[in-house]
Amino acid sequence: MADKAQIQEAIKTQGEVVRKLKAEKASKEQIDEEVAKLLELKAQLGGDEGRHQFTLKTAKGTRDYNPKQMAIREKVFNTIISCFKRHGAENIDTPVFELKETLTGKYGEDSKLIYDLKDQGGELLSLRYDLTVPFARYLAMNKVTNIKRYHIAKVYRRDNPAMTRGRYREFYQCDFDIAGQYDPMIPDAECLKIVHEILSELELGDFRIKVNDRRILDGMFAVCGVPDDKFRTICSTVDKLDKMSWEDVRSEMVKEKGLSEEAADQIGQYVSLQGGMDLAERLLQDAKMSQSKQACAGLTDMKQLFSYLQLFQVTDKVVFDLSLARGLDYYTGVIYEAILTQTGPVPVAGAQNGAGEKAEEGVSVGSVAGGGRYDGLVGMFDPKGRKVPCVGVSIGIERVFSIMEQKAEASAEKVRTTETQVMVASAQKNLLEERLRLTAELWNAGIKAEVMYKKNPKLLSQLQHCEDSGIPLVAILGEQELKDGVVKLRTVHSREEIDVSRAELVEEIKRRTSVV
Amino acid sequence: MADKAQIQEAIKTQGEVVRKLKAEKASKEQIDEEVAKLLELKAQLGGDEGRHQFTLKTAKGTRDYNPKQMAIREKVFNTIISCFKRHGAENIDTPVFELKETLTGKYGEDSKLIYDLKDQGGELLSLRYDLTVPFARYLAMNKVTNIKRYHIAKVYRRDNPAMTRGRYREFYQCDFDIAGQYDPMIPDAECLKIVHEILSELELGDFRIKVNDRRILDGMFAVCGVPDDKFRTICSTVDKLDKMSWEDVRSEMVKEKGLSEEAADQIGQYVSLQGGMDLAERLLQDAKMSQSKQACAGLTDMKQLFSYLQLFQVTDKVVFDLSLARGLDYYTGVIYEAILTQTGPVPVAGAQNGAGEKAEEGVSVGSVAGGGRYDGLVGMFDPKGRKVPCVGVSIGIERVFSIMEQKAEASAEKVRTTETQVMVASAQKNLLEERLRLTAELWNAGIKAEVMYKKNPKLLSQLQHCEDSGIPLVAILGEQELKDGVVKLRTVHSREEIDVSRAELVEEIKRRTSVV
Repeated sequence: MADKAQIQEAIKTQGEVVRKLKAEKASKEQIDEEVAKLLELKAQLGGDEGRHQFTLKTAKGTRDYNPKQMAIREKVFNTIISCFKRHGAENIDTPVFELKETLTGKYGEDSKLIYDLKDQGGELLSLRYDLTVPFARYLAMNKVTNIKRYHIAKVYRRDNPAMTRGRYREFYQCDFDIAGQYDPMIPDAECLKIVHEILSELELGDFRIKVNDRRILDGMFAVCGVPDDKFRTICSTVDKLDKMSWEDVRSEMVKEKGLSEEAADQIGQYVSLQGGMDLAERLLQDAKMSQSKQACAGLTDMKQLFSYLQLFQVTDKVVFDLSLARGLDYYTGVIYEAILTQTGPVPVAGAQNGAGEKAEEGVSVGSVAGGGRYDGLVGMFDPKGRKVPCVGVSIGIERVFSIMEQKAEASAEKVRTTETQVMVASAQKNLLEERLRLTAELWNAGIKAEVMYKKNPKLLSQLQHCEDSGIPLVAILGEQELKDGVVKLRTVHSREEIDVSRAELVEEIKRRTSVV
Repeated sequence: MADKAQIQEAIKTQGEVVRKLKAEKASKEQIDEEVAKLLELKAQLGGDEGRHQFTLKTAKGTRDYNPKQMAIREKVFNTIISCFKRHGAENIDTPVFELKETLTGKYGEDSKLIYDLKDQGGELLSLRYDLTVPFARYLAMNKVTNIKRYHIAKVYRRDNPAMTRGRYREFYQCDFDIAGQYDPMIPDAECLKIVHEILSELELGDFRIKVNDRRILDGMFAVCGVPDDKFRTICSTVDKLDKMSWEDVRSEMVKEKGLSEEAADQIGQYVSLQGGMDLAERLLQDAKMSQSKQACAGLTDMKQLFSYLQLFQVTDKVVFDLSLARGLDYYTGVIYEAILTQTGPVPVAGAQNGAGEKAEEGVSVGSVAGGGRYDGLVGMFDPKGRKVPCVGVSIGIERVFSIMEQKAEASAEKVRTTETQVMVASAQKNLLEERLRLTAELWNAGIKAEVMYKKNPKLLSQLQHCEDSGIPLVAILGEQELKDGVVKLRTVHSREEIDVSRAELVEEIKRRTSVV
């Protein structure tokens, strides 16, 4: 038996022979004969190469968006972008990959989820893990000290995908951030206002926005007697309270992490607390809590935050919740997370937003937005360590997509995937040229028009296409219409037809489709 | 000297100490002392880690988009998307990476430019090189046999970047394709109509669309006596005619590629030909050309194409040019490429569109769109080899961006990077709460509004921000206005001020900004 490379070479040559015969429109017999030789060669190779060469799939944890999904995506993005623009945000974009070192040391344990590019000579690169670190890199690199920007783009995590629940390895983040030295809590309040506006407008059902502050958490750990070197690990255990009982959390703290029972119980009393401005006031008076400067600074800011949220009329959905921890290392002040509280027919799932560190662990309620203040991150990039205070929010849009897609499924209303206003059709033969001429006229007048790419399509199939894709109008041409200088304009849903003069057609279509 | 890992551990611990002190707002002396220790540790490491840890740059051949560039990008995209929608196209999206094997064998020599991902366990992945191959994979995978779709996304090529000339390693493609079995040349003509519309609307100066056909090229090579196995290599030499003289091209064919002088001279006579339908007719009568079945099929279709282009009124810009070759392997029929013919202050550069294989070689005129018919590509993915005929076009948008950016630079008109309609301001102190309350009112009414994040900003700095960012209106609050239930509405450019009642403010802003 000849060696594999030889056979492959022979397959290539034979493939070329077949290709040429086909191109030359050689006789069927001749082609079949050569194809048979080709198949014989392929069979010699055996295994995969003898049969089908390609695995027809997308990479693990990723998906295509079909036109229907794109229509929904466009609608969701429009809502979000409108909100960001209403708040005066500028837009930026960054490359999909960064130098590997740019991402190093920003995500703690999650760094193992970063996609690296192969070393093909040159720089070592990684796909971005979120939009926050590239934003901080952008600010430091361009010496931008204040900006309000949004950025909508895909990020990449080698996570365990759960795609039916909206958890992907490639997913969108919609980030809004405010960078700059300002008076406390004003930009922070605007971020929460934005979450409130977006979740209300998307009509995803009722939601809550939990708020806490890293300084309050750290202060709380300190006064409860958590040793300094255990802050982070205890914090990540606390973070599990939304999916584990207090007993389990306590047990993990004591047994796995070696915290004293006393300290654990003290934490337990605090993290069960939820409230609003009143709670912040109460804790400022709390004998223990008030011993921590950090906690007091956080609580004073929390009071201030709630006073601004009252002005923004969003306190109905916002809860000061001492159990909210959020995993990312870079937060330094206020942190927040929005969850949908309706458990309906929608898939209950971990979301992918800034709260990726939670998604991994499989939260059972839907977190759809998260964020907080990160005053130190830009300084990590600046050669002189100059800080630029930042606060921002990330909308976890994949979960929103799945909810919207499910809603669309359930609804009787059809999702249109094109915006075509009119189909240029004909009932008679040999009118292709007239159809093309009219279609071009309509395109040139800014009308969204389609025409079938067949010389003599059946009227029924032209009308069927309109039904299928929701095109509201049909402009029908026939010998008589051409003679009379008119077009028969048919309304698809009512089947009503009227003659419209060619000169008035554009205006008539515009008039009708602005109402339809 | 301690080993590197130990020092790094010590740096980590010491960094934590500093972080905590700062968070605790410890005294400056205390912090400075610990920071000094930290720097000492870092110095021990020496090299890069001792100094600045990060290279502040984006990956080679990539760039950030700042807000001004994004504003221009949005405008260009809107023009292109409007055109695609006007032609009834649906929208799809695919992941940024594909299985490596999906891309294998599609790009010929250019395969070396594909970015691979590191093997981190699991599948072998590559970043997409264009949008055409993922589209074909999508069609085969979902058994879609006809669709008209657009796809706008970034693609990746490890090419030699020339960024000042709009040549990047990460760049956008705007693709429009029609898949399906239709009557000849009707979808092909629509693709050319689309190029014509988009280039006209973008106002980039005069342009030409060169058209040819793979079958005409192959037929021409055959009748000129090019051996079968030299078709491809001679074709790629012909492709250089837009930047090399005929003498140099001839010499490459004869000396480097071993073609006979006679064959080269015969090719030379053909590839100098340019024309329209008349040229196709003449070549159909040509004694030599008419001997090739393939060439005749191509020429007959070319005549048909021009007849449709006449109906679409775009023949003014379209030239049948026998020297157009285009490198990609997958083309099977008509091919085209649009070039800007004005050499002005714009950078003359290779473009990045479907014509990537040209960009590499550094064309000197600006190719801004390219495409053609590829009837075999989907079949390469289908397990049973079922073919789906396709034709499409790719707009090379990076070059368009650089031209538009340069135009914006040259123009006196400022590019706005936000859409803010009104700034809520105050001339007096202690009105933060009133400003926030009014701003929220405006947001809730759908008005795009900004407010400064300072307790007591100066009126001048508030007005200056409006000047800088082009905000047309200022809503000024003062004690008197609050008492009277009015707002002073100031028009920034005229400095005119009028009192508007609070109840009528939203309507008044809408009225003014719909005109402004």
